[in-house]
Formats: sequence, C-alpha cells, structure tokens
Amino acid sequence: MAGSSFGDIFRITTWGESHGKGLGVVVDGCPAGITLNEDIIQEYMNRRRPGAIRFATKRNEADKITIMSGVFEGRTTGTPISMLVFNEDQHSKDYSQIASCYRPGHADYTFDCKYGFRDYRGGGRSSGRETIGRVAGGAVALAFLKELGIEITAYTRQIGPVAIDNPLSTDLLKLRQAIMNSEIYMPDEAKTKDAVDYLSRMTENMDSAGGMVECVVNGVPAGLGDPVFDKLDAQLAKAIMSIGAVKGVEFGEGFRVAAMSGSENNDSFRINDGKITKETNHSGGVLGGMSDGSDIVFRAAFKPTPSIAKTQHTVNKDGENIDINIKGRHDPVIVPRAVVVVEAMTGLVIADLLLKNMTANIDNVKKVYDK
Amino acid sequence: MAGSSFGDIFRITTWGESHGKGLGVVVDGCPAGITLNEDIIQEYMNRRRPGAIRFATKRNEADKITIMSGVFEGRTTGTPISMLVFNEDQHSKDYSQIASCYRPGHADYTFDCKYGFRDYRGGGRSSGRETIGRVAGGAVALAFLKELGIEITAYTRQIGPVAIDNPLSTDLLKLRQAIMNSEIYMPDEAKTKDAVDYLSRMTENMDSAGGMVECVVNGVPAGLGDPVFDKLDAQLAKAIMSIGAVKGVEFGEGFRVAAMSGSENNDSFRINDGKITKETNHSGGVLGGMSDGSDIVFRAAFKPTPSIAKTQHTVNKDGENIDINIKGRHDPVIVPRAVVVVEAMTGLVIADLLLKNMTANIDNVKKVYDK
Amino acid sequence: MAGSSFGDIFRITTWGESHGKGLGVVVDGCPAGITLNEDIIQEYMNRRRPGAIRFATKRNEADKITIMSGVFEGRTTGTPISMLVFNEDQHSKDYSQIASCYRPGHADYTFDCKYGFRDYRGGGRSSGRETIGRVAGGAVALAFLKELGIEITAYTRQIGPVAIDNPLSTDLLKLRQAIMNSEIYMPDEAKTKDAVDYLSRMTENMDSAGGMVECVVNGVPAGLGDPVFDKLDAQLAKAIMSIGAVKGVEFGEGFRVAAMSGSENNDSFRINDGKITKETNHSGGVLGGMSDGSDIVFRAAFKPTPSIAKTQHTVNKDGENIDINIKGRHDPVIVPRAVVVVEAMTGLVIADLLLKNMTANIDNVKKVYDK
Amino acid sequence: MAGSSFGDIFRITTWGESHGKGLGVVVDGCPAGITLNEDIIQEYMNRRRPGAIRFATKRNEADKITIMSGVFEGRTTGTPISMLVFNEDQHSKDYSQIASCYRPGHADYTFDCKYGFRDYRGGGRSSGRETIGRVAGGAVALAFLKELGIEITAYTRQIGPVAIDNPLSTDLLKLRQAIMNSEIYMPDEAKTKDAVDYLSRMTENMDSAGGMVECVVNGVPAGLGDPVFDKLDAQLAKAIMSIGAVKGVEFGEGFRVAAMSGSENNDSFRINDGKITKETNHSGGVLGGMSDGSDIVFRAAFKPTPSIAKTQHTVNKDGENIDINIKGRHDPVIVPRAVVVVEAMTGLVIADLLLKNMTANIDNVKKVYDK
Repeated sequence: MAGSSFGDIFRITTWGESHGKGLGVVVDGCPAGITLNEDIIQEYMNRRRPGAIRFATKRNEADKITIMSGVFEGRTTGTPISMLVFNEDQHSKDYSQIASCYRPGHADYTFDCKYGFRDYRGGGRSSGRETIGRVAGGAVALAFLKELGIEITAYTRQIGPVAIDNPLSTDLLKLRQAIMNSEIYMPDEAKTKDAVDYLSRMTENMDSAGGMVECVVNGVPAGLGDPVFDKLDAQLAKAIMSIGAVKGVEFGEGFRVAAMSGSENNDSFRINDGKITKETNHSGGVLGGMSDGSDIVFRAAFKPTPSIAKTQHTVNKDGENIDINIKGRHDPVIVPRAVVVVEAMTGLVIADLLLKNMTANIDNVKKVYDK
Repeated sequence: MAGSSFGDIFRITTWGESHGKGLGVVVDGCPAGITLNEDIIQEYMNRRRPGAIRFATKRNEADKITIMSGVFEGRTTGTPISMLVFNEDQHSKDYSQIASCYRPGHADYTFDCKYGFRDYRGGGRSSGRETIGRVAGGAVALAFLKELGIEITAYTRQIGPVAIDNPLSTDLLKLRQAIMNSEIYMPDEAKTKDAVDYLSRMTENMDSAGGMVECVVNGVPAGLGDPVFDKLDAQLAKAIMSIGAVKGVEFGEGFRVAAMSGSENNDSFRINDGKITKETNHSGGVLGGMSDGSDIVFRAAFKPTPSIAKTQHTVNKDGENIDINIKGRHDPVIVPRAVVVVEAMTGLVIADLLLKNMTANIDNVKKVYDK
Repeated sequence: MAGSSFGDIFRITTWGESHGKGLGVVVDGCPAGITLNEDIIQEYMNRRRPGAIRFATKRNEADKITIMSGVFEGRTTGTPISMLVFNEDQHSKDYSQIASCYRPGHADYTFDCKYGFRDYRGGGRSSGRETIGRVAGGAVALAFLKELGIEITAYTRQIGPVAIDNPLSTDLLKLRQAIMNSEIYMPDEAKTKDAVDYLSRMTENMDSAGGMVECVVNGVPAGLGDPVFDKLDAQLAKAIMSIGAVKGVEFGEGFRVAAMSGSENNDSFRINDGKITKETNHSGGVLGGMSDGSDIVFRAAFKPTPSIAKTQHTVNKDGENIDINIKGRHDPVIVPRAVVVVEAMTGLVIADLLLKNMTANIDNVKKVYDK
Repeated sequence: MAGSSFGDIFRITTWGESHGKGLGVVVDGCPAGITLNEDIIQEYMNRRRPGAIRFATKRNEADKITIMSGVFEGRTTGTPISMLVFNEDQHSKDYSQIASCYRPGHADYTFDCKYGFRDYRGGGRSSGRETIGRVAGGAVALAFLKELGIEITAYTRQIGPVAIDNPLSTDLLKLRQAIMNSEIYMPDEAKTKDAVDYLSRMTENMDSAGGMVECVVNGVPAGLGDPVFDKLDAQLAKAIMSIGAVKGVEFGEGFRVAAMSGSENNDSFRINDGKITKETNHSGGVLGGMSDGSDIVFRAAFKPTPSIAKTQHTVNKDGENIDINIKGRHDPVIVPRAVVVVEAMTGLVIADLLLKNMTANIDNVKKVYDK
C-alpha cells in the first residue's frame, strides 16, 4: 500500500533509504506564485543536519538540496516540486553486523515480517535520514504559510529528567533567539546546561536519552480542520506520531485534562477590542477539531535512541539468542534534531487544512470565481 | 472538503446531526462473506447508549440500528453496508438558548467561523451522537477481525483523580468480566466505587469530570502498518484523537519515555518455543510504525464534558459579553460511553491496515492468485 | 476496496441494491450556504424514474427522496447530506430464475468471481437502480453549479441507427425545450418519431437497442482540471464510463481526430470584444486537460440493454450449458433514462474540479484569507 | 490540488518539465520481492525515445533512467522506487517565441488561466516528455504483472486515413514480432508502408497526422475492478484519456454498440473444457465493470500533433491577433511513440486493481493470514 505520501491537497511523497543513492521528496499541490529557491529550503535542512549539534551522529554530510522541478524564475509554478539530496558519507561496513540480527527498539524485525526481507544497510527506510524529505517538503509549506502570516515554532521542552517550565515568551522573536542560542534548541540557558550534562553522562554510560518537543503555531485563522475524522488535532497527531521515536502527542492541557473539572478546563469567551477571544487556552487552540483563533499548542514525547553501545539481548535470523553491542555513529538523543522535523510536519498539516478550508462555504467560492 | 470518511480500503462514511432525522454510516470495502446481522451491531450500539450508564445524559433513545444494504442471507456481500438510526427523543426547545451564543469548550464558535452558520440544535454534527456511525461501522470491523482471531478491549483507566494501576489481567476473559461488572467500565471494584463517589460530587457541584481510556489489541500479526507516514501508531493516533474530547494519545510507555534511558526502554528479543518474542512491551506493540506481534497498548485522555450547569463567561453573536448556565441533558463524564467508541475506531484502523498489508509482498499476492 | 465513492473534495458515496431495503447517497464536502430542499432533488429523480418514459421497465416506483441530514433552514450546512429512497415495488420472484445462472451481458458471473457469491435479486448492486444515488448526489452538485452560472445539458443523440446531426441550438433555452418535448429526450421531432418506431420493432422482436448521449457544459471558467493525471477530460471519461452500459467516451471531434490533420483540428485563438476566444471548438472545450473557456462537449455510447426476452445461450453454476429467456421488467433501451445520469455525473466532476481549482495559485488563496 | 499521482495501492507520482533539470517518478506501494533493475526499465524508455522512430522530433536524448531507491540486491523492497532522467538536449532558444503567445491546440493558454503564469520553455509540464515518468513507473507495474502471467500489448491501429482491420494474431508472439518489425509499431507490413507515405506527405505540407492505438491485455483473472465508480473500464478510460492528445476511448465494440441490438452485442457463455468461457468478446473483456476472464480490448484516438509549421492564427499576451509558424523539433505524429505509454498506463491500472481485488472476500484474506 502506498504509504509514503502525506496530505490531500498540499501533498508530499518521500523516498530514499539511508544507504541508497539519495533521498528526496515530491511536493504536489503547492499553489503557484510562491517565492522559493534552494537557499530557503537549505536553511531548514541545515537545522536537521548531524553536524549542527554536538550530541548527534558523527556522520557528516552537507545534505545539499537540489530543486529538480516546479520552480521557474524564483516562483513555484503549481506543478510538482521535486527535491533531492545525494547520500555521500555511507560507511556501509559499519552496518554489516545488523544484517543478520534484530536490534532492540528498531524496525529490523517488523520490516522482515512485512516485506520478507529488508535493506539492512543502516536503518534503510526507517533511518533518521528518512526525515530529509519531510523537512524539505515542510520547508515549502512553511514558505507558503509565511505569505499568510502563519508562523510555527518548535523547541526542546525536556531531555531526560530536565524539563523547562514555561518557555513561552509572549515575544516570539525573543523565544526564537533563545531557541537558537541553545545547542539543543531548549530556550532556557540554565536548563540547557543541565540537559547537556545529563547527555554527557548518558554517553559515558553507553546509553541514550529521551525527551519532549513543544510546538506553537501563531496566526492560524479560526475554522481550519474538519469537525469529524479530519479534525485539526487528529491530523496533527498523525503527522507528529508518524515521526520515528514519537510515543505520545497531547494538545493544550493534554493528559492533565483527565484530572481536571469542566469549570477548570473550559476557556471562557470574551470580547476584546470588538473581537471574540478566549480568556485562557487550555484547549491548545482547537475546539471541536477546528482552530479557534488562539495559538495552537502541542507536545510530543520522543523515546531514547534505540541504538546504544551497551550490551543488549536479542535474536538473529537463525532463531538464536545472542548479545549485541551496537557500533556506528548514533545520536545519544534524537530530540534536538527532531525539532525542525516537528515544525516541518506541522507546516504540512496547516498548509493542507488551509487549502481545504477554502471550499467550506459558498462565500469563499464566490470570492475566487466572481468577476 | 469531504472529511466524513475514515479508512482507505475498509472505509466508513458517517452522516447525521443530533437533532436531524437520524444518523448513520456507510461501510465500504468490507470483504464479502463475513457473518453479519443487526443483532451483532446492536450489541455495540447498546454500550454507547445514554441509558446504559447512570452518569449519562437523561436523553433516552433505543438507538435501534437498521441495516439497509450490503448484507444478504446473513453475510456481507462486498458492497456498501448502509446502517442508520432514527432520532426519536429530540427536545429541540432545550437547546434554543444556544442558538445565539457560543458555549465555552464547544464547537459553536468554530462552526460559525468555518461554515458561516450552523445547525444550532444540540451539538449538530459535533454532538456525541455523531459517534453512532463510528460505533456501527466499527462493529462491522470488529466482526471481521474476530474471524482472524483479533480482539480489542478498552476500559476506563481513570476518572478525575481516581486511576487504576495495572488493570491488565493476563486472562482476557476475566478482564472483560471485570470491565462489564463496572457501571463505568473500570475493571477494579474498589476504584469504581471511588470514581462513582467523585462523579456524584461533581454533579452536585454542577461541574464535570475528565478521564482516561486504555485499549489493548490482542492477536495482531507482526508487520501491520507502513514505515513512514501511515505508521500503525500514527493511524491510531488520528483515529483516537478524532473522537470528540480526546486531548492526548500515547503508546506503550507513552510520555514516560521522555525521562527514560535507551537501556530501560528497549525491549529485548528472545526465542520462546522457537518463536521470536519480546521480554518486555515498553513499545506498546509497535516498532518502526509496524506491529511487532506483542499486544498493542495505548491510552487516550478525555477532557471533562464542556456542558456544565455552573455559570460561565461567554459571548453572544451580537458581540456582547454574557453569562451562561447550560441546561439540558448532559453526561457529567464522557469516558464510560467513549470506551466502546475507542474499540470501534481501533477496529477500523486494524481492519484497514490488515487489508492493506496483504499487498506488501509478492508472496502474499501469489497466495491469492496462484492456481 | 472501497469503490463506492466518487470525487475528492466534493464527494459522493452511494449504497444500495435493487431489491434491498433502499438505496441512497451521502454527499460530503458540499460547501455550506447553498439553497437545497427535497423538491430540487426530486425533479432530477423524476427524470430517471421508470414511469416517466414509455420504453422503460414497467416497474413503477415513486422513488421519493428523503434528505436525512446536512440541510438546515433550507441551506446546506457543510456537513454530509444523506439522502435515501426506499424500495417499494420489489417482485423478488420475478428474478428467482437468475439465482443459479449467468445472464449474458450482465455482471452475474463477474460478481461471483470477485465476491464468491452475490445478491441475485435483480441486478443487486449492478442494477440500473444503482444510479439513484448518482442522480441525487449529482442534483446537489448541479444546484451548487447553478449559483456560479454553470449549466449542464445532456440529450439523446442516437438510438439504434437513428441519429440526429446537429442538435445544438445556439439558444440553450430552446434546446432544453426540444429535449423535454421528446419522450426519449432527443431534441428533434422527426428523429424522435423514427427512433420510437425503431424501439417498437425491437420490442416486438424481443430484442433491445443501444444509443448515444451527448452532453454540453456552458459557463465553465478556463483553467479547471489538472495538467497530468487529473485532466478534466480524464476525470469526465472515468465518471461517464462508470455508468453501467457505457462502452465509449469521446470529446470534441472525438474518434474523428484519428483521420484529421493538425491544421484541420487546431482551434485558432482570436480576440473578440477584448476577450480571448477560439474560432472553432474541435477540442470540445479542453486543452491540455484544462477547460479552455469554450463549451465542454462530449459523447458516450451505450450498449443495448442486455436483458432480452429472446432465447440466449448461457451456463449455470453447476457448469452446464443451458438456454435462457429473460423475463421481468426491463427497458428495451437504456439511453433516455441515462440522460439525467450523464448530467449528474458531469455535475459531480465539474463541482469537484471547481473546488480543487480554487487552490491553484496564491492569488486565489489570498482572496479568501486576506482581511 | 495534488494531481500528479495515479493509482491507490500501486501508485505513481511524476514530476518534471521538458526544460527543467530532469523528470522522474516515485512508485509507491509496489510489493516487495519483484525482480527489478535499470535494464528492465530502460527497455521501455527506449521505445518512447525520440530517436527510435523516423517520424519523431529531432531532439535526441539518451533518456537514461537511474533507480535512486527502493531496489536492493536486484529486488523491490516494498519502499518507494524513485527513478529519474536528466534533461540533456535543451535548446531553450528554440522556444523563446512561445513565451508571449498562445499556440493553437496547446495548453499555453489554459496554464496561464489556471496558475497565473507558466514555465514557457517547451511545453513545460504539458510536454510529451511528461510521459517519461509514466513509462518508467508503468515498466515497474509490467514487471510485476509478468510474474502473474499477465501481458499487455499495444500497437498502432490507424494513422490518418490508413487503418488496419484485424491485427490480432491468435499467436501473441507473432503479433509482437509484427509490431516490432514496423517502424511505426503497426503490425501490418503493407499498411505500414501506406501510413509512412501519408506521414511523408503531411511533413511536406508542414502539417501533422492523428491516429489510433489499440491495446490487448491477456491473462487477467476474472473479477478485477469494482462494480460502481471504480469499474475496470472507467479506471482505464481515465488512465488513457490522461495521456496528452487522446480524445476518445472505447472498449470492445465501442461506439459501434450504439447501432447494435442486444442479441448481436451480448456474449453467450459456454462451458469449454470444464471452464466458463464466452463465445464472443463484444464486451472487450469487461462485464459490469469487472474483468470477465476474456482479453481486455480497447482503443484510443489521438489528435494530430498541434505543433505544425503551417501559418496559424492566434493571439499574444498583449491581447493582439497575430500569425504564428511554430518552429522547433516536433513529431508529425504522436501515435507510434504513444504506444508504449498506453501499455504503461494500462499496466498501472491492472496492477492497482489486482492488488485491490485481493481484499474482496474473506477467503482471500484467510489465504494470506491463516497459518
């Protein structure tokens, strides 16, 4: 079943394995007339690059993006935008060990169950490099959203036991500066230091760490999302949960709502400067599956990198119990590099829902077609 | 945008508002030859019925399901199965108050933003009655899955501050008995009493309670789900988050993974009786987005019922700040009635992925077509 | 596989068999705010009713449509519009003969091959009654298109050997009058008489007749359709070919282009009153898969009704050669009743493409979202 | 709207313009385990290459295909197969003339209407080079079908006024030889000579020719296709009509059915060697939208190449009437190079329907999942 596409109107299709010739994405359904070039995309690519962060795999690739189609004279043409990155630094021999056994916490076993065999070089299609297509495609979505005043900002909220409380500056510019000042994209200087110390200890222990990413979307008009299956939060939950290593997603108060009362959790409406606003944002910007005009706020929990140097129990394809020590270049934590992936996937969802929502009522239709 | 369908191969399309002529569902893509009749569906319908639980709306409807098509001589024919329920007990006047104002925590405001106006009788399409189509459609999926030995069991894990620790009996039959013995579907007698006491207090306070549902899927073959966007857990996250009032979804260890180390969270593989098994199930039965042969385990957080009798601040359509006391028949807690909805949505996802997975490799294709 | 839905943004899902409890359709994705009621739909239903035409099955049903959801105070709400018709006049015994054998030209054999068994009462899902859902759903699309000044007009162009040459009045109103004046919807009085005579002879001979429907769409803005797979003409070809009994579809000059030269077939552009127009319309209103602003013109060939009273060779389910004389109530020609079905399917395609096209460029997007 | 994908389970997404960096395709949903390499694909690519045929554009490119992903150790892995061709021989200046005017019969005008501007180099996305992705993707489908004994054979049936009567040898091997022996893929030596003479005259006249392609599919099991909207013939009609320049599609007797009687057109069933067969194949292998086990036979009419050297009337973007003589390298006839495109699109439809059909009944499901 074709499962490598995401989105309905604004849709990406990704391809590529960690040790094949390259990886890429086709963006289809992007409106014509949006300013786009390789530099705009590359900025996002650089944020997910291994080299950008200290606690990341030693694999060092430029991950230089090439736009193959769909852009003419600096603008999108409305036809498919194909982009690709060639794999350069492939130490295939590093991975020869895993050809015949199943690494704990990895998809080796499930790949074999599904397809009968697998490309055992690196993680194949389940490698972190799979996110190259997501980020490049998401960068197009984000360029589109910027033209409509919509901004998406994600950051590291927690690494292992180190969590920040309330990173949200009311000043988006300051928040972004704080994020970019942290080598792990955690907008809090002291907590960044604590988290980095924790990561150093985990690396010494030949172990790895989990964490949490938080994401805020500003400027979304009210009414995006559909009231039943294609709710804004349902679509985002799928998008974010489809990122490797994510084990949970929550909106607004999230899991805390289980213990709250209705009077605590409901957000009152009030008129402010003639506009309808909410006094609080427990809902995380979504009511009945549609954006309510407030900031959309959600969090995602990432599991620790499954590749660890510590000895682990596992089995091989001959049905024998064995011990394994995974070598190779692996991130001790996935979270910082995943921040831009969360932004990318969020951008793809919002772009798609924004286009879908255009057809919700006859007044919108007439705005486009009436002469 | 058409947003009332769910699933690709096994697909449902639901329709209906709380105070229209009725509600229903069309199930398309169900394999031919499955035993089905109205009694099988009605059993699930009864579990979501208001009358079945003490802490539920006083609205009392039989919600009798009629199969209109797609079943012949007791078996599915492979053509669309249309099912419907007529609305009977509609106290339209109860809801006249809300025509001109926006209830906090409800979709009134976002509906008006999206569509320009709304069916203000009851919650319209955002009413809890919308789940009638989900449950009827899910019941067909569950009937199909039963033929393949797959069982789905959901229960109340938490109501307000009252949570059960480890409800999982290794004996599925006993677990189910414990669930059905609890008027709130919480498989723990003492905790049920505590939760019921808590709910009584909330009702007295003219307030409402949130909670959590847990779901376990047994017997799923390894390999279901797609490794990139259509991951098993991503699809389930969308399905569950699309249920009104859900604010968070997590798999296996869920949000706890953020603070765990890789060596704690990885599940070791071992050979047992010649079969590959996992020593633990921190992953919740999913690796790389595909089922790993263990039980699939996940949880969903439900917000408190937004309709409360307590005075709340809000605004009306004339742009005035007003106070509101919501009357009418409302559940003080959504969770118990949502348990069967979680089972239904889970069944729909598993059925669809099971059919999709048939085409994953050429050996499967030849099993069907070779003579 | 779910195959009972049509359209992406404006989508219908149909259900029902000829001898089940009823038939119906769910229209999802229709913009909110369109004037709609049962009378508007019923007008189209009446045109496909058996009783309306002399050379149609004697089965006489009112086919009264009920709108179950999605319309409030005379306007569409943006939520699914469910409509249904109950089956009334079911002479099940008339069809008992066909339970155990395969009628030539029918889908009995292919149904058994696909599903393993079939609802053998009438044509089941392959009955002409399946078009009830298409016509009701199409009527909603046509109501929507009318608000934008788009009109769709189909008529009988040929029955057996009797064909009209150039039915196209430049005056749409006169053309429609001529169509409605003909009991077989053929806008030519003399040819109607010839065709009716031919049909009488075929009925005497216990045989049936084929024919052709032509369709013209006025008022479509230029640019609808996508330049690659989802071409306007490709989508229409699928829509029309999906009507039972259609064996060919052609646009503009159609099959005649095979023998034409480029200089004959190309339509020159010219400026008229400051507007770009075409001097001819050999293309049938489509260039590169997109509407070119001219009338869209296409034709569909319908095979003769396969149910004939004449003795035919066939086989039964026990693998024996047998002879069959098909009894029951059958149209000697399908074409006149199919005219409204062609309009309905065309309306569904145009409505869907019109909504899709709204997102083609950033200027359109800003028309909807800019304040 | 994303319109560059085709197929549901076996799906291709194409990208690329005639004068961009290259063109390509992503094949998603292809079953794992199918033998595949670049040579297998290249064989099909060569058949659509300009250099292969005398009456084709002088543009000469190797069109060398590269497989970027999804194949490992000579077999498909079940993950997306990305393939691409770099553009080499781009004479951009040849096309500078068309930047400011609308060529008759081309998509220049409709592109501008839809997207606001266009990549005016060559035909952009509407160029014949767009079929590169179709053919590469179709080649994968055909490799898959071959493993199941399904063969697809297309050929030139008509060019201008020269048509062959009955090219169908009962011996598939001989037919294929006759096709490959003709420089225009017309399996008749004398008619090939006549057609070539006709083409020479058209070239002298600075004009172009239309034609017809016929296609036969052998070995398809009965039951493929869905009985309502996703009929086998409806899907094929869309696939074939989506090829640039196709103006009509017909199955079996096609447009001839309009004048036939039911007794002439119905195919009788008979038992042959214990198997159910049809005495004739007027239906073209499809009954009720599903394959009936006979050969699937259909024809497509192609319009003459719109680019002709003769003087034509048209308009420019400034709204002026002008005359145009189109220079550059253009095929005087599209048909011979389109033959392999028809095979490719047909392969894609059959592959997709074959996979979809696996889920039609519970017996098939159990064949895959029962242990």
